[in-house]
Amino acid sequence: MSTGFFGDIQKIKFEGPDSTNPLAFRHYNPDEMVMGKRMEDHLRFAVAYWHSFVWPGGDPFGGQTFERPWFKDTLDAARLKADVAFEFFQLLGAPYYCFHDADVRPEGRDFKENTANLNAIVDHFEKKQAETGVKLLWGTANLFSHRRYMSGAATNPDPDVFAFAAATVKTCIDATHRLNGENYVLWGGREGYETLLNTNLKQELDQLGRFLNLVVEYKHKIGFKGTILIEPKPQEPTKHQYDYDVATVYGFLKTYGLENEVKLNIEQGHAILAGHSFEHELALANALGVFGSIDMNRNDYQSGWDTDQFPNNVPEMALAYYQVLAGGGFTTGGTNFDSKLRRQSLDPEDLLIGHIGGMDCCARGLKAAARMIEDGALSNPLAERYAGWATDEGKKRLTALSLEDLTQLVESSGLNPQPRSGKQELLENIVNRYV
Amino acid sequence: MSTGFFGDIQKIKFEGPDSTNPLAFRHYNPDEMVMGKRMEDHLRFAVAYWHSFVWPGGDPFGGQTFERPWFKDTLDAARLKADVAFEFFQLLGAPYYCFHDADVRPEGRDFKENTANLNAIVDHFEKKQAETGVKLLWGTANLFSHRRYMSGAATNPDPDVFAFAAATVKTCIDATHRLNGENYVLWGGREGYETLLNTNLKQELDQLGRFLNLVVEYKHKIGFKGTILIEPKPQEPTKHQYDYDVATVYGFLKTYGLENEVKLNIEQGHAILAGHSFEHELALANALGVFGSIDMNRNDYQSGWDTDQFPNNVPEMALAYYQVLAGGGFTTGGTNFDSKLRRQSLDPEDLLIGHIGGMDCCARGLKAAARMIEDGALSNPLAERYAGWATDEGKKRLTALSLEDLTQLVESSGLNPQPRSGKQELLENIVNRYV
Amino acid sequence: MSTGFFGDIQKIKFEGPDSTNPLAFRHYNPDEMVMGKRMEDHLRFAVAYWHSFVWPGGDPFGGQTFERPWFKDTLDAARLKADVAFEFFQLLGAPYYCFHDADVRPEGRDFKENTANLNAIVDHFEKKQAETGVKLLWGTANLFSHRRYMSGAATNPDPDVFAFAAATVKTCIDATHRLNGENYVLWGGREGYETLLNTNLKQELDQLGRFLNLVVEYKHKIGFKGTILIEPKPQEPTKHQYDYDVATVYGFLKTYGLENEVKLNIEQGHAILAGHSFEHELALANALGVFGSIDMNRNDYQSGWDTDQFPNNVPEMALAYYQVLAGGGFTTGGTNFDSKLRRQSLDPEDLLIGHIGGMDCCARGLKAAARMIEDGALSNPLAERYAGWATDEGKKRLTALSLEDLTQLVESSGLNPQPRSGKQELLENIVNRYV
Amino acid sequence: MSTGFFGDIQKIKFEGPDSTNPLAFRHYNPDEMVMGKRMEDHLRFAVAYWHSFVWPGGDPFGGQTFERPWFKDTLDAARLKADVAFEFFQLLGAPYYCFHDADVRPEGRDFKENTANLNAIVDHFEKKQAETGVKLLWGTANLFSHRRYMSGAATNPDPDVFAFAAATVKTCIDATHRLNGENYVLWGGREGYETLLNTNLKQELDQLGRFLNLVVEYKHKIGFKGTILIEPKPQEPTKHQYDYDVATVYGFLKTYGLENEVKLNIEQGHAILAGHSFEHELALANALGVFGSIDMNRNDYQSGWDTDQFPNNVPEMALAYYQVLAGGGFTTGGTNFDSKLRRQSLDPEDLLIGHIGGMDCCARGLKAAARMIEDGALSNPLAERYAGWATDEGKKRLTALSLEDLTQLVESSGLNPQPRSGKQELLENIVNRYV
Repeated sequence: MSTGFFGDIQKIKFEGPDSTNPLAFRHYNPDEMVMGKRMEDHLRFAVAYWHSFVWPGGDPFGGQTFERPWFKDTLDAARLKADVAFEFFQLLGAPYYCFHDADVRPEGRDFKENTANLNAIVDHFEKKQAETGVKLLWGTANLFSHRRYMSGAATNPDPDVFAFAAATVKTCIDATHRLNGENYVLWGGREGYETLLNTNLKQELDQLGRFLNLVVEYKHKIGFKGTILIEPKPQEPTKHQYDYDVATVYGFLKTYGLENEVKLNIEQGHAILAGHSFEHELALANALGVFGSIDMNRNDYQSGWDTDQFPNNVPEMALAYYQVLAGGGFTTGGTNFDSKLRRQSLDPEDLLIGHIGGMDCCARGLKAAARMIEDGALSNPLAERYAGWATDEGKKRLTALSLEDLTQLVESSGLNPQPRSGKQELLENIVNRYV
Repeated sequence: MSTGFFGDIQKIKFEGPDSTNPLAFRHYNPDEMVMGKRMEDHLRFAVAYWHSFVWPGGDPFGGQTFERPWFKDTLDAARLKADVAFEFFQLLGAPYYCFHDADVRPEGRDFKENTANLNAIVDHFEKKQAETGVKLLWGTANLFSHRRYMSGAATNPDPDVFAFAAATVKTCIDATHRLNGENYVLWGGREGYETLLNTNLKQELDQLGRFLNLVVEYKHKIGFKGTILIEPKPQEPTKHQYDYDVATVYGFLKTYGLENEVKLNIEQGHAILAGHSFEHELALANALGVFGSIDMNRNDYQSGWDTDQFPNNVPEMALAYYQVLAGGGFTTGGTNFDSKLRRQSLDPEDLLIGHIGGMDCCARGLKAAARMIEDGALSNPLAERYAGWATDEGKKRLTALSLEDLTQLVESSGLNPQPRSGKQELLENIVNRYV
Repeated sequence: MSTGFFGDIQKIKFEGPDSTNPLAFRHYNPDEMVMGKRMEDHLRFAVAYWHSFVWPGGDPFGGQTFERPWFKDTLDAARLKADVAFEFFQLLGAPYYCFHDADVRPEGRDFKENTANLNAIVDHFEKKQAETGVKLLWGTANLFSHRRYMSGAATNPDPDVFAFAAATVKTCIDATHRLNGENYVLWGGREGYETLLNTNLKQELDQLGRFLNLVVEYKHKIGFKGTILIEPKPQEPTKHQYDYDVATVYGFLKTYGLENEVKLNIEQGHAILAGHSFEHELALANALGVFGSIDMNRNDYQSGWDTDQFPNNVPEMALAYYQVLAGGGFTTGGTNFDSKLRRQSLDPEDLLIGHIGGMDCCARGLKAAARMIEDGALSNPLAERYAGWATDEGKKRLTALSLEDLTQLVESSGLNPQPRSGKQELLENIVNRYV
Repeated sequence: MSTGFFGDIQKIKFEGPDSTNPLAFRHYNPDEMVMGKRMEDHLRFAVAYWHSFVWPGGDPFGGQTFERPWFKDTLDAARLKADVAFEFFQLLGAPYYCFHDADVRPEGRDFKENTANLNAIVDHFEKKQAETGVKLLWGTANLFSHRRYMSGAATNPDPDVFAFAAATVKTCIDATHRLNGENYVLWGGREGYETLLNTNLKQELDQLGRFLNLVVEYKHKIGFKGTILIEPKPQEPTKHQYDYDVATVYGFLKTYGLENEVKLNIEQGHAILAGHSFEHELALANALGVFGSIDMNRNDYQSGWDTDQFPNNVPEMALAYYQVLAGGGFTTGGTNFDSKLRRQSLDPEDLLIGHIGGMDCCARGLKAAARMIEDGALSNPLAERYAGWATDEGKKRLTALSLEDLTQLVESSGLNPQPRSGKQELLENIVNRYV
């Protein structure tokens, strides 16, 4: 029994690169083998419930543009929304979805009603998952939209808000656990400040560290096997967010003893806002051993806010998936489309078209990345560039010689090193052979 | 025997706020007591050798505009430069100066010649310090200008460059120690990358961690009592620098076991480039216990590069010194003017005028900050805002209750917290009472 | 009959710089004479209806935080809102206000209902203006919030939207005329594009040019004596707005023959987003003869979106009012507070506190600017710097000599000009004597 | 007689997309026909003398990294540089080059010596052009590097600098004319300001307008048939440049009566710095009828300065060439590589590799753009979107109806327009079919 929302659109098929059908994949072919694994198993696509089924199309200067039959705050409407969402997952062939509590349930008057509403929808989701085979990549709690969280959730000056947020997270971990979610994500949209003038930085950081430890303890207690993920973002909605970027979050995890318990969900748009490329954040997470999952979208480099557009630049995506593959690929993580339609894209089919384009770009990026890895296109020149450090003498210099030893070495040998070309243009051209 | 460079300009005096003499202080009065300490002892001003005596006025689209008699690469010219510099420190009444090796000595053909040249100038500096009473706030090594460092110093792919850099740092620590420098600074201008394509991030971070450990070991070995300082900067000259910002450096120090050995020298301009306010970086360094010293300048918010202008916005400086004072003030650190004249400011007197304006602004900022602290203008509202956490119940929630306990508490009490005004505008108005 | 919204707060009084009363002016003293004119008549403060009485406190990650009794879409609620607004204008002593149609009336189902609703409120406003003496600085039409305008108003691909927008503007000019508004403003929030891929740039510019000409024709036809103002903004909500900045708007006005009919309403925050300082935009508008009015607020330099904060940096405001005064001051224009409370500032008194702080800062800026002008503090050095152009020889070079004449002059005289110091630091220090 | 600088590298050949030879074209095939024209005649590639043969590899934190045998300030070295440059043009198969006077001649002590030096090199260039068939796309004067121009050239406060600059431009137009240059370019690197405090905006704009008129008059007088081009840039080296962007320059040309005499040379990097996409600037220049030529490079979106990298993102280049072709393609203009090697790219072959990669990307972009145009891939949906304006009723609304007429129309018809999907994602997916 279809809801009819998508009319007579049928399941999206792979038709190959020459297809001009806007409702077909040209590059994403789930069963195609890439580096010995099915493309679907590499990419692990998830649809983000909030952007696709909840966001009304508003921006700071205008309200709702989308008109969806489920835009009402009732349980029935929430179930209709779920039905359309699962239809969408199936039409698209997306193996996973992700949600916040507030995306899926009507807003209650208090904690008790919120919990009851959430559980009613989780019942429905269980059924839909069983019917469709679609799985939950991750669940999360929305601790930023309601006015009670306007001054933060874990980092609120009011201990009551801390408690309310903690209880809410418990219900969301419980829901994720019940739905066999493969990860649980925390995004601290209001964990930061609008002005230092009213902020006790140290106090708030301690609250946040404690909160995260509570989550980790609870996960172990209930036997949730998924990964706990933090999602960095530097600002927006706040002036400054504590989970600024990968490096900041890593320092935070070290400080509160969590670096072995928590991994990172990294978003392209958030990387850009923090002044980094997406591949930088991914490479750094790999280097620090905290890579977990990705939120896939495209930020406009020239808009200073989080535009959450569908990704469409294949050369950039090839570099991102290169880092994902170079780190061994996803384990519990995946590619969550944290992308939303432009607010002028009103038609139901636009939802499919946006995701199809994004999935095709990801597929092209993945394949290019895989070929670069298989050819050693970048790794061979890299190994050669650092070859000096792989020699016994190189290792000795890195680990055994003191400042005085090294000075002695320079003086005695008259060592006067000459620079060698960094070959950036050559490497950029090499990448362009693959994309 | 004056060099005559500054003509007949006499020592700059404090003349009070009504003075219109461009060569007088209107606010900086070294002996004035602020919070029980002389203003000079609070601010601990230092002049940066490089900007004031070395920089020729070039930018990426044009060359030298300044014509200084010491712009030659000989030891004699270097001594003349030193003589002018010490005259300047005295005219200005700056108690401290700071330098890189490459600022003060002619460039040699190799390590040996560099060392000999440096030592010849250190001899001269020793004499000048004794004559004038001017002290060394910090010394440092320039590991970024010479082409041998084009791909990094500690993080170079070539172990020979690592060794050369290490030996050079040893000579600079030795020089700083000999001149009774109160700190030794490391700034990693090339410790980063231009492109990830030719960069082994993990290898380079390990090199940098090792290098810094070598410095700390050597400091202890020779009994240098000064503080080792790192100066964060996110980019420029490189695309990405490993010492991105305070949070990044803190994570790095934790990773390499250095968080108790190294502190931070924080620059306004670098904070801005990293997307932070200066006061944010200072407050965070205080919160993390790694505040050391400041490089004072003003970046143009609308230019995407490091403009290193003399500071001139008093309200911003009041907020910066508020953080400095709130953290207990400087110990070995100070206020180093990492500010340079605009390249059109050709006249010798411009050097004085730039510094005078900066020092007056610092003095105004310091006094405003001190009054805010004495009045509890910001700290009282802050304590009130977080009062809930100071109660026994608040402390219990932060440290003793589990996620389940907190959920139980919310459920049993029907807790439904209501937001309270953050009062940002009120606090901003309060600050404006002081500046 | 007070609405009671502001409790027992009384009319805000000037208490002088030493007052610590948060509900008093410390610098804004309406009757104080500045350069021979009352401060009130210089500054011509207006309150923006939308931010203060309509905005619910939402941002892209959260909804309403403010709870106002008039947040309902009925005529009665709209009248209550108006009553509170006029109480506020009186408490604050603001001589002017500004509004969009959509701020003040309930949203109708169609044009007819919109017009009827607007007229009902204009009736109410007429009465309130007569009762209170508060005047209308400008009116405007909101052509960006409703979904019908999602692809632009004047620049919409659909001629029906163009017509609907035109009719709406007519009703708003009529309302402004009836209320004796001193200006009528156009802000093209959706006159731009999200992507060039679906945009016919030339067609849309021609539509915009025509639209503006229609407005000018109508103004003359009905005898509206106010000034037609355009408000530049580079982006947000759109990716690119046609009214990018002062220079862009000027070129547009020239192209469509409007440069003598239309002036500019310049906002600090929009200037910043376009990569300019506020004073640059003001100075340029003066140079081009199109300065009209200002929207006063403060953008966060480090947030890439339009933060519309209350202004609080006096040195920056002094430079802005310097340009306003240097151009002769306002005629029909004024200082409209296009500033909104932070969404955490929930209390009714916060509305007053925000405006009080802003008005005090404007007053300080104005007074500093006036003193600089009276002293010739900046104009005298400027005249001296360009003195060569004021000589007969200078004038001849600018107007009479050809490229060959000038070459001949250089060759024959062996002219080899030497640069002179630009004295930027000196001038910055001079400004700091006044703020 | 080869200079030997490029060793045994032979003329770069087209080897097709499967080639892995770093010294071959994979996509640029000069004789391949695209939309009925040879690829070479579409793209009209030029090499920029300054970046490739003059720039020493310095940045604000370090000096020369490149070691070239011609880095001496003598006429012999200048001739060697020219010989290497023309060898390079031939190896690469670049049909054009571009230069500033200061790139090609030694710096003289005065105007006379500069002119003599320039003429000596122009003699040499004439011979080299004749020998090789390489042509001059455009010449220009460097009015920004020498200290005499530190406060501007045409906009200098000193009329002597104005005269010196004018005479210099005359010599450069003469040189360009003699060498059959197809355009003459003006880039106002110092025509702007560092601080408004020392700047008379109106005076400087008038100087700039006059200067440009002198150039146009002289061009006509000597019968130079090339196009006069202005190159917009918003800032760097100055805080603000008068030639900010296309829209600003257009307004300026209108103001000084030059809109039919001068066209624009548009650079990707400058567009980015001004907050625009490259395709925006190109589309706007087309819409305003002032498109001339392009400076091809790639700016790092995340570095706030002008990075001038070789272009390497094909999807972006396809959109740029789409605008070029949609406007009818180049007439006298071309694709000048205003791109420089990264300073670590030391090897002579890196110069070739950088250009080869850039040319291949341009070729891919051009071919994709041509196919989109031939298919009407974007133009057909665009025509459909604006179809309402092409009807008689649409035309009437745009040109004949007054504000009252339109209001009457809305009222009488009860017109209530409904929005239609903007289809941005669909269009982005369509573009991705071509790149």
